[in-house]
Amino acid sequence: MEIKILQEKLAKALNTVSRVAAGSRATLPILNNVLIRVDDNKVTLTTTNLDMAVVSYLPASQSKNGVITVPARLMAEFVGNLPRGEVVEIGANGDKVTIKAGEYTSTINGASADDFPELPEIDESKAVKFQMGVEEFKAGLSQVMIAASGDTTRPALTGVYFNTFEGSLYLAATDGYRLAERKFIEKVSSEVMAIVPAASLQEVLRSLSDDVTEIELLFDETQVRFRLGEIEVTSKLIDGSFPDYRQLIPKQTEISLGLKRDELVRITKLAALFAKEVGGSIVCESSVENKSFSVASVANELGENNSAIETAVETDGKVTLNSRFLLDALNVLDSTEIEFGFSNKLDPVVLRGKKDKNYIHIIMPLKG
Amino acid sequence: MEIKILQEKLAKALNTVSRVAAGSRATLPILNNVLIRVDDNKVTLTTTNLDMAVVSYLPASQSKNGVITVPARLMAEFVGNLPRGEVVEIGANGDKVTIKAGEYTSTINGASADDFPELPEIDESKAVKFQMGVEEFKAGLSQVMIAASGDTTRPALTGVYFNTFEGSLYLAATDGYRLAERKFIEKVSSEVMAIVPAASLQEVLRSLSDDVTEIELLFDETQVRFRLGEIEVTSKLIDGSFPDYRQLIPKQTEISLGLKRDELVRITKLAALFAKEVGGSIVCESSVENKSFSVASVANELGENNSAIETAVETDGKVTLNSRFLLDALNVLDSTEIEFGFSNKLDPVVLRGKKDKNYIHIIMPLKG
Repeated sequence: MEIKILQEKLAKALNTVSRVAAGSRATLPILNNVLIRVDDNKVTLTTTNLDMAVVSYLPASQSKNGVITVPARLMAEFVGNLPRGEVVEIGANGDKVTIKAGEYTSTINGASADDFPELPEIDESKAVKFQMGVEEFKAGLSQVMIAASGDTTRPALTGVYFNTFEGSLYLAATDGYRLAERKFIEKVSSEVMAIVPAASLQEVLRSLSDDVTEIELLFDETQVRFRLGEIEVTSKLIDGSFPDYRQLIPKQTEISLGLKRDELVRITKLAALFAKEVGGSIVCESSVENKSFSVASVANELGENNSAIETAVETDGKVTLNSRFLLDALNVLDSTEIEFGFSNKLDPVVLRGKKDKNYIHIIMPLKG
Repeated sequence: MEIKILQEKLAKALNTVSRVAAGSRATLPILNNVLIRVDDNKVTLTTTNLDMAVVSYLPASQSKNGVITVPARLMAEFVGNLPRGEVVEIGANGDKVTIKAGEYTSTINGASADDFPELPEIDESKAVKFQMGVEEFKAGLSQVMIAASGDTTRPALTGVYFNTFEGSLYLAATDGYRLAERKFIEKVSSEVMAIVPAASLQEVLRSLSDDVTEIELLFDETQVRFRLGEIEVTSKLIDGSFPDYRQLIPKQTEISLGLKRDELVRITKLAALFAKEVGGSIVCESSVENKSFSVASVANELGENNSAIETAVETDGKVTLNSRFLLDALNVLDSTEIEFGFSNKLDPVVLRGKKDKNYIHIIMPLKG
């Protein structure tokens, strides 16, 4: 095997794939390695943690075919520290991989590619395909992912549910306490119901480089592939059924207030400071008499706090929320004006951006 | 007590003093609090962790005298989240402290100032005083502090030794494996031999705001005070004797090489990647035959590495170092060209910036 390639290209590709290499936690040591394959002047770098694989394709002239694996992080750090503009030469002699660049030489102990796990294959001709702009995908996915659960005892909730409904593609996530849903693409012709692990989606977001503008998604029965320019992330789907979440979204709420996002963030933060001892509980209240919406912490050892926003109010109402969930939601609502809808102490709170009807965020109240 | 003060001024002062308030680790709960004292339209904010106290002075018109303590971090975060430009009103009623700003009100439960610890006093008329420019102080102190020890079993090594010698003020630190010394002020008229805790110096560096250009140091027998504009940091000195470090600095070395700092950093980093399994050991070697200075990792499971810098060499030599110590030193040597001096396997390595004769950094070799 032999490769000649510009330092910055190789460093960038290694940097992307090496994150998935499992590090010292791997029970299977070869998972720490990156598989380097050269075939007809095409270089493929692959890493996997068995749940997910990342592949980067690179062109390299004057290369000789071959395949080897080397510790991914060591290789990425080594190449990353070489000077920009240098041509890096990689060669393999048995399991020894030599790296040269100008005055710099090193030999890394690799391992045979025979021991590298089989990589998941997707039959692209049968796969369900979607395509979308990267900016839209990134922004929308971040809005949904925050509601995914970290609790691995309920695997279905640790993913994002890609689902088609009435001809549109939706993404949804819920941890049982809150729910986020975004409509992504209208008028899709194929159908999908697939739970993608949030960890894999994090990796997709991290692997997006600035020069990629379109992202392609390919689903089969058990896997999904994200194609991002020269990078492919392939992940297992989560085997399980996602809750029938649409029934949880209230058709309407008794009270709906238009509020400035920044003001609501500020008064929620102020109240949250005092709510640390009570698990983040804050009381949100609309008052016809005061023409205001207020957020207060429950009185406790630290003291108490009450801040109000002047706004038109038609109905008195009161609901207790976890301040962190409210701040998380406000943080991803990309609108200066938001709608805060609630009914009574037990019904879900509905948050939307005033100009963005494709995103909805639901928070279940705490028992006040 | 009553204070009216602009949000940004109060927020900045609280932010500075609240770092020292001990947080939940405090055995004495009142150490979490900031002491707020108003006296003739002057506001003083004070925190202490018993080893060190930070005081911030603020002018506030229309204020009423009084004194109270409140949880420092809560107060700092609360005021920090209020809108800029607002006038913040603080009042005390018994132990309750009310904070108002526009629509925002809160009550924080404080505690009587009677329980706040006595603060260290320095008799300024008898103290030994030095004065220096902030930029010089910051840059020089950072160069010295990296050599201080984290090992509290040898307290004297956890500080920076401020000492006068032949009419100049020097700062020095050593952890037994490396030593850094900087000459600060020439032609001083007073004498000092004082070990200042590195933790207190960190706090001094963090408390420096951009508008402060001069720093004043006042030493008495057991304490030091740093005066930084409207902020004062007072710290206990470390009780103990600092090693007689000047005898450890070699008068000269057998080999002295002029090297480009960036190149040496790069080859050291490359070698360090391979040296993780051998405790960071790297071998530095000058070769007359190759006209080069090379850094290599010792062969081990990961592989091996050798990188060289072309340079004029008159004597062959070899020394084994901890790569982290070498990188730490190169990181603070503020020169594009550096001098790398060494003698044989056991003698200390001497590092200097080519244009900076006031700083010296010594590293003890490892047994190769």
